[in-house]
Parts: sequence; structure tokens; C-alpha cells
Amino acid sequence: MVLYLIGLGLADEQDITLKGLRAVQSCSKVYLESYTSILLVDDFKARMEALYGQPVTLAHRETVELEADDILRGAYEGNVAFLVVGDPLSATTHSDLILRARHYQAPGASEPTPVSVKIIHNASITTALGSSGLAGYNFGQTVSIPFWTDDWRPDSWLARIGENMNLGLHTLCLSDIKVREQSIEDMSRGVLRYQPPRYMLLPQLIAQLLAAAREHQVDFLDPERTLAVALCRMGADDSATRRGELVRAGTLADMLACTEPDEAQRRQDEQDDEAFEEAHPTVSEKEMDARREARRVQRAIAFWGEPLHSLVLVGRQLHPMEVEYGQSLALPGSRWAEVARDVYGVH
Amino acid sequence: MVLYLIGLGLADEQDITLKGLRAVQSCSKVYLESYTSILLVDDFKARMEALYGQPVTLAHRETVELEADDILRGAYEGNVAFLVVGDPLSATTHSDLILRARHYQAPGASEPTPVSVKIIHNASITTALGSSGLAGYNFGQTVSIPFWTDDWRPDSWLARIGENMNLGLHTLCLSDIKVREQSIEDMSRGVLRYQPPRYMLLPQLIAQLLAAAREHQVDFLDPERTLAVALCRMGADDSATRRGELVRAGTLADMLACTEPDEAQRRQDEQDDEAFEEAHPTVSEKEMDARREARRVQRAIAFWGEPLHSLVLVGRQLHPMEVEYGQSLALPGSRWAEVARDVYGVH
Repeated sequence: MVLYLIGLGLADEQDITLKGLRAVQSCSKVYLESYTSILLVDDFKARMEALYGQPVTLAHRETVELEADDILRGAYEGNVAFLVVGDPLSATTHSDLILRARHYQAPGASEPTPVSVKIIHNASITTALGSSGLAGYNFGQTVSIPFWTDDWRPDSWLARIGENMNLGLHTLCLSDIKVREQSIEDMSRGVLRYQPPRYMLLPQLIAQLLAAAREHQVDFLDPERTLAVALCRMGADDSATRRGELVRAGTLADMLACTEPDEAQRRQDEQDDEAFEEAHPTVSEKEMDARREARRVQRAIAFWGEPLHSLVLVGRQLHPMEVEYGQSLALPGSRWAEVARDVYGVH
Repeated sequence: MVLYLIGLGLADEQDITLKGLRAVQSCSKVYLESYTSILLVDDFKARMEALYGQPVTLAHRETVELEADDILRGAYEGNVAFLVVGDPLSATTHSDLILRARHYQAPGASEPTPVSVKIIHNASITTALGSSGLAGYNFGQTVSIPFWTDDWRPDSWLARIGENMNLGLHTLCLSDIKVREQSIEDMSRGVLRYQPPRYMLLPQLIAQLLAAAREHQVDFLDPERTLAVALCRMGADDSATRRGELVRAGTLADMLACTEPDEAQRRQDEQDDEAFEEAHPTVSEKEMDARREARRVQRAIAFWGEPLHSLVLVGRQLHPMEVEYGQSLALPGSRWAEVARDVYGVH
């Protein structure tokens, strides 16, 4: 029988292909991989079950790593679908499962009994980046920007952006996703409890880019001189609960300005915080930081909408057509065209 | 109303998404872009019409360039679908149509009447390359390898491959497609007649890579020391008339060896050619060259199957898991693992 790895595409249950749907409906067991990306609709599990007419089992990282043999035994006995948001092989996360299938030996079998694997590809953010209007040929390596913490600030991605920029190439920056993460406190106490999911939003992604650029004193990332295209919720339709796709172009500074509070708002925030501290005299600095962070998240979502957010950094190999397309996506008041002309030299 | 740009995905009419299908079925006019790629099944137009329940109009390059206003007027008055094999924006070929839609002014209107554009993404070769088992993060810029002729041998792609290789990155090489091309003779005589479609096959692609490497004396492409993964007909099912997807790994020399005639075959070919020349004493050298070329094409298809063929060149940033995955795809007798160890230094 067959282990199908099926891409779900970008946004909702309607993004599956007809071939993918037909394959799912031939399966006796359906897993949904739920740790590398998310669908952009609420209740997606229920929506998928309604569409496929069969139950869907959420597969967490530990399910796949620890129970791979169960999944493969299922695929040895009947068809099994393993659904992945986006393309099933955009990341190599699932290569291991495929290799195990190729080396599978059924319980009691005296020799290998490989399980057939069939991959049904679909759109992922690496295809959707065409919506930036930037030419696919001029993209270099893709980077992932992980959440920084107080004492862990990985930034090896900066060198990779620099390599792309040196060649004049665009860079797709993917923002971090943290699903079913445990806190260090819980882990050290042996408590199995998951943190709420966290998705990096554009302002934080850009802030980390610029902080790393300052720390390493590189010249290829500059708020006023680096152009970018924001890709938010690619493929999403407008709906009651979440906003549709949003694609906007500008300098990094233009993008940050969209969610920065003005002077009056800043004063209002401070007054709110002071009032809160007076009303709660035992509040810790950590709790106050969480309040400020929640406010930043709220402002980010108010402008850019719900996650997932990605960002394309624009390299110097820029064509006038790409500039014109970007202009049609430019943020109000953006310096897109000016910087394209004066810094990138495209007329 | 809406101009839908809808990706058809990789191989056949079943690769459209449910969202794409629903959009097509809402349209009063359906165009199929037919000059940047092909579906991998025969009679795809008839199959699509049967699936959608409505006629499909083939849009050639000149249709889109010259009749864009007709397409846009249709989309101003009702929904129009513009179908593209793969992802609609993998190349920027269609950016111009989108920009025109954003600036559209209906006949008789006193001000712009922009046409809404909605893009429905889908898998393309840039997503399907995950099937190589190589990590998406380690790919550099993509290159296209155009057919060489006697007096036109463009090779600017070699420098781009070199840039990727210097950074240790993998390179996706796309092979040339020539659809509805006119011969220089016909053009100079003013005869509107199209050459049969031509698709570059793997042996020719590899031969051009190696010829350019020799001419420019670069060291990053070597038949015995460069690893590659061939991606043929990605997403295609087996069918009566065409073969299914084929993914194989090896050195460039391993790949060339698969279609090179052995000594006995070579002698047989020469005897056939001599017999043909005796039977047709007026045959020109050009006709004899065409005969030899047809034989090479036949051998290429016998081993690698019908087009489309793409090739991934493997860079030095290679992970043991990628090597193991490649080993599961290796051509019989291939030196994949040996070269990964001795040249790429991966154990």
C-alpha cells in the first residue's frame, strides 16, 4: 500500500489539489503534521474532516519521531495520508520518514518490506513569493529567523543574507513558529505542559534583522536603504475571523513605522502602565514586560494581520519591472521608488 | 469582476487545487497559457475542458502580449481565468498582465477602472525539488539552460552556478523549452510557420554544462566530481503513453553513461548511417546530423523518459541525511556515496 505525503498548500482546506483529495479519500488513516506550519483558518481540523469525510489525527513532532513505526505499519497494511501544510518537502523535516519507509520491515517479516511513498506537491511560501513581483531567478538562499531570548540570540542567518546581498540576490526570510514548546521552568520541574503557540510577527522580525546588523556592523541591512516586501497570510481569503493575504512593499523603516506608536500613544501607554502598577503594587517587572509585549503584538496584528508573516529582502539585481510592481504594492508614504532609484540605481 | 491567475501544478489536470477549480468554474472565459511550460499528459486541453465543463482557449505569447486588453475587458465584465502550468508567478512572465489589470481603464470610462486580480498558487518545479532530498534552505539562485545553436552559445548561467557553488549551495537547472518558435529561414521569408516544440533533455543539458565548464576552465563542474539529482516529469503518474516521475542521483558522468551507446551500438549506428547514405546518395550532411540527433533524443527518452527534465547540481553544504537520501535515489553503479565522501567530505 502507499504512504502519501500530501501538501495542503497555503491557507485553508480548499487549497488541497484534486489529486491530493482523491489520495486522502483512499486512505484508512489520515495524519496532519502540525508542528512546522499552520493553516490560516480557525477550526481547520473540523473543516478538513468535513471535506474528506473521515477523521484526521494531529501528528506532533513526537508522534512522528516516536511512532514512525506505527505510521509505517499502517501504510504497509493500507493507504495512509500524512498531510503537511504547504509542500510536504519544502523542509527536509520529513525525509527521515520517507527513508524509514524505504527500509521498512514488517513485524515478523524475514526481509525488508519497503512501503511505497508518493509525494503530492503543493504551493508553499517559496512559490507564493512570486506575489512579491520579484523574479524567482534572483532569489538566493532562504533563511529562518528564530525568536531571540534574553540569553540566546542566534544570528547565523545574517551571514547568509550577506552572501545573497553580495551577489545582488533577494532573500526570503521566514519567521519563527513555536508550537507545543515547553518552558525551561516546566522542563526542569518535569512538568509536561505546553506554552501557547507563538508566531513571529513582522515588526519583531525586522527589529531582529536590524539589531543583528548593528551588532555585526554590516552595511547591507539599513532601515532607510534596504527595500523589502512583506508577505502576510499568503493565499488566505478574507473571512470573518482572520484577514486575507496582505502584500506590501517599502523600506524596512517604512514597515516599522506602520506599527510604531506616535508620541501621544506612547504617553498614553505609559500612563496606562503607571495606573496598572498603582492598582497592582506587587506586579513584577517581568509581568510589566509581558504587558508591553502584548501591546506590541496587538499593534502588529492590527496593521499586518494575523500570522504567518514572511519578508523578502530586496537585493541589488533589481529590474525596472520589479520596481514598478513593488510600487503598486507600496505602503502609503513609502520611499520604495526613491530608494530603488537612489540606492539600488534602478530608473 | 476578477482576473484569476491560477496555477495548475505539476503534471495533469488533477493537480489543480479545489480553490482553483471553484474559481475556474465561476469564470465566463478560461485561457490556458501555453508558452512557458506544459502539462505532462496528452490531450490536456480536452481533459481540462471535461473537468471544468467549459471551453479552454490556448493563449500563446502573442495572444497575451497583443490581446491583453481583450483579456482585461473580459475580466472587467465577468470573471476570467488565466491558467498557468506550475505556479502562475514562478516566472515574472505574467507580472505585466497584473500591472495592466491594476491600471485598466474600461473603454469609454473617464477614469481608471482597475480589474481585481487574484492569484491562486500551486506547486512548481521550485517546490518539487524537495523530492531530490536536498534541503530547500541550501539552494542558491535558479538557472535556465537555453538550447545552444551553431553560432549562439549563451552561457551566463555558468557564472551564476559558480556563485552558488562558491557558497556551497545547490543549483536548480531548468532545461529550455521551445514552443511555437519560427525558423530563421521562415522569418526572413515572412512565412508564419512554427517549428515542432522542442524540450531539452538531460543528456544535452549535462553536455552543455560540461562544455561551458571546459571552455571557461572552471573547476566547480566536473563529470567525475560533481554530484547531481535528475528530476524528470515531477508529479507525473504512470500512464499508458508517458512515464511517471523519475528522480535519480549520481555524478554527472554516471548520468551521461546511462544514454551513451556502447561500442557495439556505436558500430551499428555507423553501419546504419552508411547504409542510409548509400540508399540516398543525395542526402545532405545537415540531414545526416538530424538523423544522429534524433537517435540521441530517442536514447535520452528511452532512459529518462519524456520531458520535462530538470537537474539539481549539488553544492558542498551537504548533510549526511541528504547523502543518505540521495543514495536511495542513486543510479545503478553510481559513485554517489563515494564522491560524497571523497570530494564533498561528508561521512
